[in-house]
Amino acid sequence: MVKKVLTVGEILVEIVATTRGDGFLEPQPLVGPFPSGAPAIFIDQVGKLGTPAAIVSRVGADDFGALNIERLTADGVDVSGVEVATGETTGSAFVRYRNDGSRKFVFNIAHSACGTVPITPAADALFDSCDHLHIMGTALSSPGLKDTALAALARIKARGGTLSFDPNLRPEILGTPGLRAALDEVLAQTDLFLPSGEELFLFTDASEPDAAADELLGRGIGEIVIKNGSRGARYVSAGRKLDVAALSVEELDPTGAGDSFGGTFVSFWLSGADPEAALHYANAAGARAVTVLGPMEGTSTRAELDALCRRTEG
Amino acid sequence: MVKKVLTVGEILVEIVATTRGDGFLEPQPLVGPFPSGAPAIFIDQVGKLGTPAAIVSRVGADDFGALNIERLTADGVDVSGVEVATGETTGSAFVRYRNDGSRKFVFNIAHSACGTVPITPAADALFDSCDHLHIMGTALSSPGLKDTALAALARIKARGGTLSFDPNLRPEILGTPGLRAALDEVLAQTDLFLPSGEELFLFTDASEPDAAADELLGRGIGEIVIKNGSRGARYVSAGRKLDVAALSVEELDPTGAGDSFGGTFVSFWLSGADPEAALHYANAAGARAVTVLGPMEGTSTRAELDALCRRTEG
Repeated sequence: MVKKVLTVGEILVEIVATTRGDGFLEPQPLVGPFPSGAPAIFIDQVGKLGTPAAIVSRVGADDFGALNIERLTADGVDVSGVEVATGETTGSAFVRYRNDGSRKFVFNIAHSACGTVPITPAADALFDSCDHLHIMGTALSSPGLKDTALAALARIKARGGTLSFDPNLRPEILGTPGLRAALDEVLAQTDLFLPSGEELFLFTDASEPDAAADELLGRGIGEIVIKNGSRGARYVSAGRKLDVAALSVEELDPTGAGDSFGGTFVSFWLSGADPEAALHYANAAGARAVTVLGPMEGTSTRAELDALCRRTEG
Repeated sequence: MVKKVLTVGEILVEIVATTRGDGFLEPQPLVGPFPSGAPAIFIDQVGKLGTPAAIVSRVGADDFGALNIERLTADGVDVSGVEVATGETTGSAFVRYRNDGSRKFVFNIAHSACGTVPITPAADALFDSCDHLHIMGTALSSPGLKDTALAALARIKARGGTLSFDPNLRPEILGTPGLRAALDEVLAQTDLFLPSGEELFLFTDASEPDAAADELLGRGIGEIVIKNGSRGARYVSAGRKLDVAALSVEELDPTGAGDSFGGTFVSFWLSGADPEAALHYANAAGARAVTVLGPMEGTSTRAELDALCRRTEG
């Protein structure tokens, strides 16, 4: 049976500064709007690989929402659960890279259309028809999104579905009231955990990667994939450890790479692929994403991933 | 006595598409963020002319808010009444010109920081220290701004102050519940009415400009200045009519021209200048504004207005 993947979370547009520097204190050249939002990028990547995919979210009745709906639809994502909210504005993120590669953001998310995502009848129907849920930490930090994400989790788990969890947490939101409890609730039901770098230690007492992974496996998480960006990735399950080096590509824009990696790993994992193959393709998806400007512009088809692997390995 | 001008209303950033076309359905080159918001542009123009000026508004604790506060302060505007709201986002407007010169917008205002502007102690102090209030219709269309604008009006009028009123209404917001009543309440107390084009007819039964102006004068409005963009402007009071042709300049970006015109007229009017001189300078301010890209970039000092007049008239 082909499994359908659901995610619940923010849909945004991203506006990218084309010069490097410290933020947005003066007018400057920009490019955008690009379709964005970590859960949206993730699910776009899932859809592009031909895996059935859907997202529950909310956009404004504006060009920014239309742009995202059009892109997701074109890439095979079921957008029936995306509510179009008249009188509200689609969320946005402005990003500018500094010379040291770090990023400065101006977000409009909490008070945007996707800051509150009620369970519409269409969303409810997706809770019944999807087999796997992917949750990102940002959805849990938003009071208006959290309940919907947790409801989806309860419903899909009750029907025997699986959960992947990517903390995807900016440090500045960790103090959000109620976030920690929600994270713990989600982690306890996680089948596949996808932390980036230091996020591996969010839920452990261990201070060393292997010990942290073992601690999480001991708590019932089946499999862990640690994303370390340009330093590669690692897969850990009971009795199995796999490492993959990052592909050598020219980095243009890393935004969205982790989400593309995750969407690819989950697609292959759900289809029953060996973790080694899943890791291999996810790695290629992350590598390809960083070579393209725009957060969702670098999601990949299977053919694009195969082509990249041939080029970088041959 | 030198009079101090207050306005209450939105502070925004504006992002401008650098190509012409129909909106924001695909990534494209942009430039911004520019300081913006019609009341902010108006008051920046007042401040630049050296007239005491203040604004009551609200921005997010982000670069977009800082950019506006910095600009307004540099141009002499008292920003003590601008609340910086942590956890909210400064309002924004994306604008793209179509080939026919019309504009497509994507707004984030109602749910942005300036969508709700409570009366802070600092705002309250400005109600006591300012002598003139300028109200724009957009402030009355927002439930979270209207009460503050009307409170400012009541307080300043009670102290013998004056009111200028620029409807500045996009047709699509005219149906906003409660807007009509608020507009009528404000018009009834207006000393100087500054409609653009067809807005002259918003509050009259007349269908012809002179009859409409006469009807408004008959209802107690002291003076009317009708802004007709590139077709010039007209001043009407009991027994006096003045027309001024638009200056011949190359139009680059008309956004903000009406606000610059209004800020200049009000500055000269409050200083006791003859309406003819006020109209002359306001006309120059509007002309200069259209030659500069960015809504607030084209506000003018007295010296800049004098220079433009010498150039275009000599």
